[in-house]
Amino acid sequence: MDALFDRYQPTLVAALKATQDRGYWSAYPEIPSGKIYGETAKDDGLASYNAQLGRPFDLPGHPGSGIVGAEVSPFGPSLGVTYPAADANSLIAASQAAASAWATAPIKTRVGVCLEVLARLNHRSFEIANAVMHTTGQSFAMAFQAGGPHAQDRGLEAVAYAYAEMSRTPAQAVWSKPQGKAEPIVLQKHWRVVPRGVSLVIGCQTFPTWNSYPGLFASLATGNTVIVKPHPGAILPLAITISVIRQVLAEEGFDRNIALLAPDAPGAEITAGLVQSEAVSIIDYTGSSSFGEWVRRHAGEAKVYTEETGVNSVVVATTDDFAGMCANIAFSLSLYSGQMCTAPQNIYVPRSGIATNQGHKGFEDVAKGIASAIDDLLADPARANGVCGAIANSATLARIETARGLGTLIRDSAPIDAGDARTATPLILGVDAEKTDAHEEERFGPIAFVVAVADAAEGIERAASLARRKGAITAALYDTDDTRIENAVNAFCNAGVNLSINLTGGIFVNQSAAFSDFHVTGANPAGNASLTDAAFVAERFSTVMWRQPRTV
Amino acid sequence: MDALFDRYQPTLVAALKATQDRGYWSAYPEIPSGKIYGETAKDDGLASYNAQLGRPFDLPGHPGSGIVGAEVSPFGPSLGVTYPAADANSLIAASQAAASAWATAPIKTRVGVCLEVLARLNHRSFEIANAVMHTTGQSFAMAFQAGGPHAQDRGLEAVAYAYAEMSRTPAQAVWSKPQGKAEPIVLQKHWRVVPRGVSLVIGCQTFPTWNSYPGLFASLATGNTVIVKPHPGAILPLAITISVIRQVLAEEGFDRNIALLAPDAPGAEITAGLVQSEAVSIIDYTGSSSFGEWVRRHAGEAKVYTEETGVNSVVVATTDDFAGMCANIAFSLSLYSGQMCTAPQNIYVPRSGIATNQGHKGFEDVAKGIASAIDDLLADPARANGVCGAIANSATLARIETARGLGTLIRDSAPIDAGDARTATPLILGVDAEKTDAHEEERFGPIAFVVAVADAAEGIERAASLARRKGAITAALYDTDDTRIENAVNAFCNAGVNLSINLTGGIFVNQSAAFSDFHVTGANPAGNASLTDAAFVAERFSTVMWRQPRTV
Repeated sequence: MDALFDRYQPTLVAALKATQDRGYWSAYPEIPSGKIYGETAKDDGLASYNAQLGRPFDLPGHPGSGIVGAEVSPFGPSLGVTYPAADANSLIAASQAAASAWATAPIKTRVGVCLEVLARLNHRSFEIANAVMHTTGQSFAMAFQAGGPHAQDRGLEAVAYAYAEMSRTPAQAVWSKPQGKAEPIVLQKHWRVVPRGVSLVIGCQTFPTWNSYPGLFASLATGNTVIVKPHPGAILPLAITISVIRQVLAEEGFDRNIALLAPDAPGAEITAGLVQSEAVSIIDYTGSSSFGEWVRRHAGEAKVYTEETGVNSVVVATTDDFAGMCANIAFSLSLYSGQMCTAPQNIYVPRSGIATNQGHKGFEDVAKGIASAIDDLLADPARANGVCGAIANSATLARIETARGLGTLIRDSAPIDAGDARTATPLILGVDAEKTDAHEEERFGPIAFVVAVADAAEGIERAASLARRKGAITAALYDTDDTRIENAVNAFCNAGVNLSINLTGGIFVNQSAAFSDFHVTGANPAGNASLTDAAFVAERFSTVMWRQPRTV
Repeated sequence: MDALFDRYQPTLVAALKATQDRGYWSAYPEIPSGKIYGETAKDDGLASYNAQLGRPFDLPGHPGSGIVGAEVSPFGPSLGVTYPAADANSLIAASQAAASAWATAPIKTRVGVCLEVLARLNHRSFEIANAVMHTTGQSFAMAFQAGGPHAQDRGLEAVAYAYAEMSRTPAQAVWSKPQGKAEPIVLQKHWRVVPRGVSLVIGCQTFPTWNSYPGLFASLATGNTVIVKPHPGAILPLAITISVIRQVLAEEGFDRNIALLAPDAPGAEITAGLVQSEAVSIIDYTGSSSFGEWVRRHAGEAKVYTEETGVNSVVVATTDDFAGMCANIAFSLSLYSGQMCTAPQNIYVPRSGIATNQGHKGFEDVAKGIASAIDDLLADPARANGVCGAIANSATLARIETARGLGTLIRDSAPIDAGDARTATPLILGVDAEKTDAHEEERFGPIAFVVAVADAAEGIERAASLARRKGAITAALYDTDDTRIENAVNAFCNAGVNLSINLTGGIFVNQSAAFSDFHVTGANPAGNASLTDAAFVAERFSTVMWRQPRTV
């Protein structure tokens, strides 16, 4: 039963080392190249995706008493895929019925299954990329990377941490307590990893795989059964994932219902019933803070791991590469039209301007510098489509309309010439720091504020305070003064925000690399957990002992 | 600043190894011997204890606007010690004001402080033993071991796990991502351990140090400030502990208010105000399930670690050492008059009796065998006092009165000839398994039921089911059939209960050894956490990053 573990052990060993070193490492190549994935991989993946469209998704043996499915690509067409639908109680009953053999399977067997699943998902990265693209609105290149290899790396990272935690206590030990001159008392002790039970993973629309894989694989590896509740608008990527898991489970002799899909229809979500079930003992949630708060309050004794919303900030103090700074911020604002949880919203700039390698730049110069860099970046429609992709949810377009009046228009949002796609480039507004009702609300999507402050110190204080109160996943700083940088480091550390300093090249504040960057700190309202650290996996199981006198 | 860390590094290294090996290991000798602790240590400790009595406890610089303190020894005399009393808000304000330097102190500095504190507590073990004895009712020998070295070992265990978790991610790393033929993107990354904030430790009366030290030292080591709220009946042992912590903190240049005592008066407890404060971000609680549930519901976003109540069971199937079994169970029931959270309450015995090395024993033979073994154990009053100690809380005596009518009297409870001490030997009642209203309620203290079941399998099923529903910390089994033992192991593992099999010698189901036995599994209602594993410490801090392009 451990053949899979043995096959992938080198990958696991490398992953474990990477979690400790935290330098660059990746198990799954991020370049959608025929040389890596096979010359026909791209066409094959597209063909596989197309073959899924317009018909029932194949999930043999999956519980369901009806069908749901109404996904529409942000690039235009309806997917027309339907999925087996079951109510919360039926899914939980099926999950519990499948639990026993998985809970008591050897650790290496479960980890081997997870590693095989990840390898197969990697081979289907092109198919998954199309599914992610047409449910999230990500461009193909981004959908491939974030939805495929990067998500798989995050899954592997969770498996590695889970394996490390489960292996930390030996399976047995001899306890021999000296008794002076008498014979020692000797006990043989045994420990077993016991999973918590049914694990619920609640996915989001924008990153259905990347944000779901850590909880999904952490729970599976630690012996829990999983029910994956996708966003109604982004079911297909997780349906493919669940189908692969079920296939490997069946091949290895396990009940396929260890992994279940819980698709539902917009307006008829079954999430509340799943969250409130006493049988659900682990919940991984990615989504809005408002529903996140509901989940946390109604989860009962379940362990809850969330990534919620927040407001990310950039503070501009000074730079020795003004053009590079503007281009870097422009890309961060434009990438996937600001629909990343790591995208900046507020850019704090001193009212009196900043010193740069191009001389003094006034507040407006900085704001316009960023706006111009966006214009340059998105001048070519093909490139604009590749950077911005499409808007996942029409509510985001409405949000842009509402936001337009909240400040001085620095750069207007506009559609990209992209056929039927729902698109929007970044809206940039100038506001004074006092206008907190404008810039201190999260405005998800391509909406950014250049916020006028007295100086960089005020910007840092406001950004850090906002992070503490409303959450933030990322922060960026442009400065060259070591003392001020140190102050900023302290302020953002205390606010639980990961900080990027002076990014000007081909790396962006939005980017979070598995095995090196912890995504979310758990230390502010943007989420109560981190992807992935020991805390993310350690409570998904208990260690239970039995002991008896040792018969020599 | 790391001189303390360097001094105790060998202890820490050995402790870290012990947490992985899980064989027998202890840093602090459990034998109250003059050869180990110094020939005058016992007298000196008693003198120090006596010097505390009848006057205000000395906590220089501790906030307080009044005094409280009404401890009365279960062995008779009032302690007459008073403590500075402050309201919840004042304590929290003082704790927050002290936080900054401790939060940003190097990991090794904080760990060094904790190790120095533990070493000093160890030197004061005799004084602490007297304080524990006269607040809990434990006999001197038990108060020394459980309240002194064993508690210190549990504290060290928590420090070791905390150090391991904080050291897991490097302080910095170079992230170099290849870019094909172009130059790699190189980032210098830094990580900092950021504590959650104010940590509240709510102590219990029966084990004020043993049950408090894990949370206290785990929180301190990870950079949180701590407020220790002792049980109004058992303040002194924790006051001594806090005074030692404050002394070491002051010597090392830290604000003493990093560690605060929150004593209160019975009927005017300040616990609720502390629990409900948004500033409190970690809560460690030991006590009843009813208040534990309140704590869990009202803790807001604080991380809560609990040890609550449950019903522990023994299942008797067969034995090849009937006398040894009866003597072992007798000791487990008598030790500290059943006031240990690990003491058994229900002993399931087949109605038709069991096979033993002394031939067939009927249900009544087994029940009477245990009762007789208790009589033998407690025949000598001096020995009885040493085993049973005194009853911590008069409510326990009332509970014995109420319980007496719940079944067939097998052995009556009685006082021990012990002067003014409040004492009671075990009450043993026989009941049929169907009488669940008698034996399925937790009846804290020296109250046990011999429960008649059809066979051992029913006993295991009932005991495991009870553990799942109402919690259990320990279970014991007497059996010689490997298949049945395996079934019991599976049943109790699934119920999250640590199981001891065939204990007949000088080791008892009640005993839980640091560095080997995890105390509580977190997998049933007897508690949501385990002392001590990675999960117990990993969420007491976050890891926050800053990164910037590396200038070569």
